[in-house]
Amino acid sequence: MPYVNIKVTKEGVTKAQKLQLIKGVTDLLENVLDKNPATTVVVIDEVDTDNWGIAGEQVTTRRSKGL
Amino acid sequence: MPYVNIKVTKEGVTKAQKLQLIKGVTDLLENVLDKNPATTVVVIDEVDTDNWGIAGEQVTTRRSKGL
Amino acid sequence: MPYVNIKVTKEGVTKAQKLQLIKGVTDLLENVLDKNPATTVVVIDEVDTDNWGIAGEQVTTRRSKGL
Amino acid sequence: MPYVNIKVTKEGVTKAQKLQLIKGVTDLLENVLDKNPATTVVVIDEVDTDNWGIAGEQVTTRRSKGL
Amino acid sequence: MPYVNIKVTKEGVTKAQKLQLIKGVTDLLENVLDKNPATTVVVIDEVDTDNWGIAGEQVTTRRSKGL
Amino acid sequence: MPYVNIKVTKEGVTKAQKLQLIKGVTDLLENVLDKNPATTVVVIDEVDTDNWGIAGEQVTTRRSKGL
Repeated sequence: MPYVNIKVTKEGVTKAQKLQLIKGVTDLLENVLDKNPATTVVVIDEVDTDNWGIAGEQVTTRRSKGL
Repeated sequence: MPYVNIKVTKEGVTKAQKLQLIKGVTDLLENVLDKNPATTVVVIDEVDTDNWGIAGEQVTTRRSKGL
Repeated sequence: MPYVNIKVTKEGVTKAQKLQLIKGVTDLLENVLDKNPATTVVVIDEVDTDNWGIAGEQVTTRRSKGL
Repeated sequence: MPYVNIKVTKEGVTKAQKLQLIKGVTDLLENVLDKNPATTVVVIDEVDTDNWGIAGEQVTTRRSKGL
Repeated sequence: MPYVNIKVTKEGVTKAQKLQLIKGVTDLLENVLDKNPATTVVVIDEVDTDNWGIAGEQVTTRRSKGL
Repeated sequence: MPYVNIKVTKEGVTKAQKLQLIKGVTDLLENVLDKNPATTVVVIDEVDTDNWGIAGEQVTTRRSKGL
């Protein structure tokens, strides 16, 4: 029954990588808390790098600096 | 003043259906908790089926199985 | 499979009222979008009135003004 | 370490305005709570006006009424 | 830089289990997407069973039925 | 009409500091995007330090190391 929301920047995450995240989180919740995988929900949000800020600047800017 | 976030998979929800969800939730909060409709906010997120996981798999995969 | 998050101020919502919200939202999603109630998840967050702001002030303050 | 999520309607917010929001929130958290800007994360969500409801109607409709 | 929010019912999750969730998710994001663990943020919300609904009923009720 | 959610660790944030955050964010959205303060909603979540992870460890642990 857990609900997990993963937010990452939108930088080419593939369908296969998304599946790995979904499976990995679902397994983790089963292993640690014995949660039934059948009702574990995972939602992945991909956020434009202009819309994600850290340290007071946009990720777009950080990427252009090689960060 | 309530804030409601509805997440559904992005599978052709129409503008009219979105209005029904917004009106339905706003009415529900007025009926149950006497909340003023004027300040009830509803935000609908439509999520790509590759980005929504349940039971450790992507909804895209479940749809292709007829689930 | 929808996920709904309802945020309201923490002002004595009863267990029965929470059930009405959960049932109401689940029914709404079935009626409007034909979503299977078995996998509709609803999470209600009750927020302290000091922690909820609207119009630049705390709800605690608004309540003391009779708003 | 704070995490801030700003949701606004998708109505032409520029990259420069997003930066102002990111910088403004990061500064605010440093000034008020002495939070280290290096680890303050800000995520901006732009929501389609069909998907944002207030007072039981879509923002799209309100805009067409000049609200 | 990812942000992950895990919501589970408030049913005695220990501090050590929370650490396993935090470490597990941080490792997963490093392994799958090469994300720097130093800036991966994980927030766990524990939700009262009265406030969590699935299939139109409260988890409190489901637990009393042995579900 | 914006909705802002601020998550910080639960470490003694005062009612007055919360008001500063609410006012600061509301002003920022008016200044940058000309948003009407009357309908700007701000919700502050205070999260237990056991439930907040960064760099794969709990904030509780980081605090005990003086981080």
